[in-house]
Amino acid sequence: MKLAFLGLGVMGYPMAGHLARAGHDVTVYNRTASKAEAWCGEHGGVRRDTPAEAAGGADIAFMCVGNDDDVREVAEGPHGALEGLKPGAILVDHTTSSAGLARELEQRATARGLRFLDAPVSGGQAGAVNGRLTVMVGGDDASFRTVEPAMRHYGQAVTLMGPVGSGQLTKMVNQIILAGTLQGLAEGLNFAVRAGLDGNQVAEVLSKGAAQSWQLENRARTMIEGKFDFGFAVDWMRKDLAIGLEEARRNGSPLPVAALVDQLYQRIQARGGSRWDTSSLIQLLAAP
Amino acid sequence: MKLAFLGLGVMGYPMAGHLARAGHDVTVYNRTASKAEAWCGEHGGVRRDTPAEAAGGADIAFMCVGNDDDVREVAEGPHGALEGLKPGAILVDHTTSSAGLARELEQRATARGLRFLDAPVSGGQAGAVNGRLTVMVGGDDASFRTVEPAMRHYGQAVTLMGPVGSGQLTKMVNQIILAGTLQGLAEGLNFAVRAGLDGNQVAEVLSKGAAQSWQLENRARTMIEGKFDFGFAVDWMRKDLAIGLEEARRNGSPLPVAALVDQLYQRIQARGGSRWDTSSLIQLLAAP
Repeated sequence: MKLAFLGLGVMGYPMAGHLARAGHDVTVYNRTASKAEAWCGEHGGVRRDTPAEAAGGADIAFMCVGNDDDVREVAEGPHGALEGLKPGAILVDHTTSSAGLARELEQRATARGLRFLDAPVSGGQAGAVNGRLTVMVGGDDASFRTVEPAMRHYGQAVTLMGPVGSGQLTKMVNQIILAGTLQGLAEGLNFAVRAGLDGNQVAEVLSKGAAQSWQLENRARTMIEGKFDFGFAVDWMRKDLAIGLEEARRNGSPLPVAALVDQLYQRIQARGGSRWDTSSLIQLLAAP
Repeated sequence: MKLAFLGLGVMGYPMAGHLARAGHDVTVYNRTASKAEAWCGEHGGVRRDTPAEAAGGADIAFMCVGNDDDVREVAEGPHGALEGLKPGAILVDHTTSSAGLARELEQRATARGLRFLDAPVSGGQAGAVNGRLTVMVGGDDASFRTVEPAMRHYGQAVTLMGPVGSGQLTKMVNQIILAGTLQGLAEGLNFAVRAGLDGNQVAEVLSKGAAQSWQLENRARTMIEGKFDFGFAVDWMRKDLAIGLEEARRNGSPLPVAALVDQLYQRIQARGGSRWDTSSLIQLLAAP
């Protein structure tokens, strides 16, 4: 099966690498050509100058770019992937973008005799490098079964969530839950330290009970240390929360805490923390 | 070692039961005498009419009652435990109460040649019945080592957190973290259902990633079903949050989300949900 991978950022680069290492014939495209050259040097694939050319002979074209505008440019712009794909081929979008854009791309793909799946991932750069991402897919069952084996090379959990858009909606749920979880953890740990407790001991004890979370187990120590130069960046979280808040406006879901936490992340950006991990919420609570 | 247990409510009744089953000689007191009679019928211990009498011959007196006022009455009221305990004995308070009250009780105990430990628990009624509570202890090391073996009969994790009051402060951290975690989960799951996703499938998929939590794994299904007639009651959570919010006012910790969630629980009480599980926050978000 011939594959294309469009977008070799911190996520796409290692994801495409897993496909090549599994023996797939992968043609790549990246806006900054030097990165695509580096990828080909490492993995031995072929590089093309436009998404259309890269997607040309592919049975499946994966894309993983920044935001809705990037997706539009790479998928449906001039020399975009939809222009190049052959009839029956599948375009898969791994970008976290809006459910509305996913549905729009499905319509355009169908009009050209192509198929489309939205498939945002979670697990961050580490998950992409280790091949342990969670992949949340929206689309039809037959297309899902065609792409699933390839996705397994970088996804430890690959699940069809419903029709096109459902992958994006599931990812929004993930980020909404994270917002409350992280702020609760930040308030609790900051309180612990101000109360004179040993924050790490508190985290250890509470991880055995009802306050346990992945964030408590993986972020408490660095939150207490004030170490945030790693992980999932505040800029990306705000992009994702904006998508979720907009969708919630449409479907009528109240998100009082997610909206508040989005505002708190704006304060972190203003303090120069755009690239800090999302656990940096505790910084706003600490004494100045 | 002779033990006393004061307060045989949903927590104290099974906790005292574990001590008796382990072979300890347990004398009990309960405000409603019929419950103490039932306990003696089941476990074969002795019942007394006042905390002072029950604590009379004990090396350690455990208490587990409702709130600060109940603690004061049972510990330092007329015929209270401090009156009855013999020199060198230890009074242990398993009630979730304020750190200030714990320090006050320590002073009174010391003045009488007694010792005091605060030791709130988490894990709920199920944890008490199964002997799998988390016990967070504040006090001196020697007293801790004396009581720890007995606590192990109902505690899977028994930890000395620091001087008297530290157990209560740790429990406050637990409830503060829970507030944000539960509201984040409620907002996410409500959004999932309104977006047309299968909430249980979403919970299953997200439990493999960074949004995982004990609450997600143990409450998502019942939250989606709208089932709240079990678990940890909103009334008790509000009592605990009030203690945490008051302490935070003293130590200067901002708790924007915990304070908001406390207000949301007030709405649930107004809707008749005083006895509902804390996961009932999702009820306020659901369409009317």
